[in-house]
Amino acid sequence: MSEASTPRAAADEVVAALDIGGTKTAAALVTRQGMVVDRVTATTPGRAGATAVLDTAADLVHLLTARAAGTRVRALGVGSAGVMDSRTGRVLSATDVLTGWAGTDLRGRLRQLLDIPVTVINDVHAHALGEVRHGTATGYETVLFLAVGTGIGASFVAGGSVLAGAHSAAGHAGHQASPYAGSLRCPCGRRGHLEAIAAGPGLAKEYARRTGKPVDDLRSVAARVEAGDETAREVVLLGGTAVGSAVGGLVNMLDPHAVVVGGGVTGLGEPWWRALRSAVRRETLPSLCDVPVLASTLGADAPLVGAASLAWEATE
Amino acid sequence: MSEASTPRAAADEVVAALDIGGTKTAAALVTRQGMVVDRVTATTPGRAGATAVLDTAADLVHLLTARAAGTRVRALGVGSAGVMDSRTGRVLSATDVLTGWAGTDLRGRLRQLLDIPVTVINDVHAHALGEVRHGTATGYETVLFLAVGTGIGASFVAGGSVLAGAHSAAGHAGHQASPYAGSLRCPCGRRGHLEAIAAGPGLAKEYARRTGKPVDDLRSVAARVEAGDETAREVVLLGGTAVGSAVGGLVNMLDPHAVVVGGGVTGLGEPWWRALRSAVRRETLPSLCDVPVLASTLGADAPLVGAASLAWEATE
Repeated sequence: MSEASTPRAAADEVVAALDIGGTKTAAALVTRQGMVVDRVTATTPGRAGATAVLDTAADLVHLLTARAAGTRVRALGVGSAGVMDSRTGRVLSATDVLTGWAGTDLRGRLRQLLDIPVTVINDVHAHALGEVRHGTATGYETVLFLAVGTGIGASFVAGGSVLAGAHSAAGHAGHQASPYAGSLRCPCGRRGHLEAIAAGPGLAKEYARRTGKPVDDLRSVAARVEAGDETAREVVLLGGTAVGSAVGGLVNMLDPHAVVVGGGVTGLGEPWWRALRSAVRRETLPSLCDVPVLASTLGADAPLVGAASLAWEATE
Repeated sequence: MSEASTPRAAADEVVAALDIGGTKTAAALVTRQGMVVDRVTATTPGRAGATAVLDTAADLVHLLTARAAGTRVRALGVGSAGVMDSRTGRVLSATDVLTGWAGTDLRGRLRQLLDIPVTVINDVHAHALGEVRHGTATGYETVLFLAVGTGIGASFVAGGSVLAGAHSAAGHAGHQASPYAGSLRCPCGRRGHLEAIAAGPGLAKEYARRTGKPVDDLRSVAARVEAGDETAREVVLLGGTAVGSAVGGLVNMLDPHAVVVGGGVTGLGEPWWRALRSAVRRETLPSLCDVPVLASTLGADAPLVGAASLAWEATE
C-alpha cells in the first residue's frame, strides 16, 4: 500500500471513491467540488478472486476514513474495470485479469463491508465523468471520451450523463473495424479491430512484428523512440493515426462538442498526439474538423473524481 | 405532380409534413397517431434555387389543405436533405443537388407562405423518428438508424429524441474509415470512407471497376444479379458487408436497443441483408450480437411521419 503526498485539505463532508483496475486499486476522499483530499493505492489481488479484491478495496476506504477523523464520509462511488450494471450495482462481465469478477454484487457487498450507500460505474465512464464534471471538459454539452491504454474504451457523455447502453456495454470503441488493423486478432476474439493495433499491447506487438525483436511492453517501444529508433517512431505514429481515424469517424457520427483522450498510451507524447489530431482532421467533415481534441487533465484522479460525483448525486 | 392512391381517412385535425429531397418532394397530411391520410409528390426543382423549391413545397401543402376541407391543418413539419438547424429552422449546409439551399430560412419562409407553425429537421433524422414513434422501432429506448441510399446517413435516437450534435451535424455515419473502401474518394472529399464503397453510386462504380463495364446506377447492378452475373452478386455482398461492419462498430460503441436500416439500397434484397446481418454479428461483442437489426417498414412515408411527429410536438 503506497500513500501519495497530497496535502490533506479540511472538508466537513466527503465521499469515498474507488478505482478498481486489473493491476491497481486506488481509493480517495473527494469533496462535493471534486477535490481529492486524500488518496491511497494498493495492488489489486486480481487473480485471488472477488472477495480478495473487495476486501482490499474496503481496507483502503477504512484507512482513509480512519485518518479523516471528524469528516463525515457520506457515500462511496466505485469505478471498476468490466461491464457494470449501474442500476443493480453488479458486474456483468470482466476480463480474466479480475478472476471471478463477473457476477459480483459490487454494490451489495461493499455496502455490507462499509455501511454507506454505494454507486457503481465502469471505470472508463467514471474517467469521462471526472473530466466532464471537474476536469478539462467542463462546460461542454456532449463529450466523446476515449481511454487508450491496455485496451481502448470510450464514453459518450450528453447533458452530464453517460450513455450506458441497452446492455450497459456502450463505449466499446476499440472494437470497431480499423483499416490499420488488417486481420489482426483483437483481445475480444474478433479480427481487424482498432484495439488490436492501437492499444498499448497492439503497438508493442506491431513493433515486434516489424523488427523481429520482441519487446516487453509499450514502454520499451517509447524508450526506443527516445533512442532514435525509426521503426519505433513509425509504430507510435501509426497508433496515433489509427486512433485519430476512428475518433474522426465517431465525430462525424456524434458531432460532440469536444473530444477528450486519456489513458496510458497518451504518455507517448507529442508525436502520437500530432498523428492523432491530424488524422481526426483528415477524417472529419469540414464543418466538424475544428472539434476540440483535449488531453485528459485529471490523470489517475479522473476515475476517482467521476465515481465520486455519482456518489454525491446519489446522496441528494 | 402525382397523387398516390391512399384512401383518405377522416380526421378532425392533422398536421402537414414535407419531405424535401434532391429529386423529389413529398407532402402528406398526418394524424396525431402517425397515420398518413393523404399524400402527394412532385419533382424537386433542385437546380432552380431555393425559392422554386419552397414554392413547389408550399403548393403541395396548399393542394392537400384544399382537398382536406373541414380538417384543420395545425402545423407543418419539414424533413429536408442537408444539415438543418432545428432551433433556428435554417439550412446550414447542403449538397449541390439543391442549389442555393444552404442559408435558406426554411422555417421563416414556409411560415410566410403557409401561415402555420413550422418545424424543421434533417430528412434522415425525420426518417428515424418516423420509425421510432410509429414504425418498426416503437418501444425501443435507444435506436441506431442507418439510411443507405445515394449517400449513407444515420441517426441516433435516445428517449425519443434525435441526437442533433454540436453543429446539428450528427449522423454522418457514411463518413467513417472503412476497411472495404481502400483509398476511394468519398463525395465529401475525404478518402476511404464507407459511403465511397457502400452507397448506391459507390456500388455501381465498384461494379464498373471490376468489370470494365460502366453501369448507369445501382438498379443496373441489381438487374445483373437477377440475370446471374456473379460479379454483380459479389459487389452486392460487399456492400452489405461493409455497411454491416460499420454498424457492428457503432453497436459496440452505442449499445443501442435496436438498429433500423432503410434507404434505397435495402431494395437489393435478401443477399444484401444477409451479408449485412452476418457482418454485424461478426463485428459485435458476444453480449451485443443479438441486437435486433430491423428493416425500415414505413418506407417513403417514414420521413413524413417523423417530421409530422415533431410538428405535433410543437403544437402541444
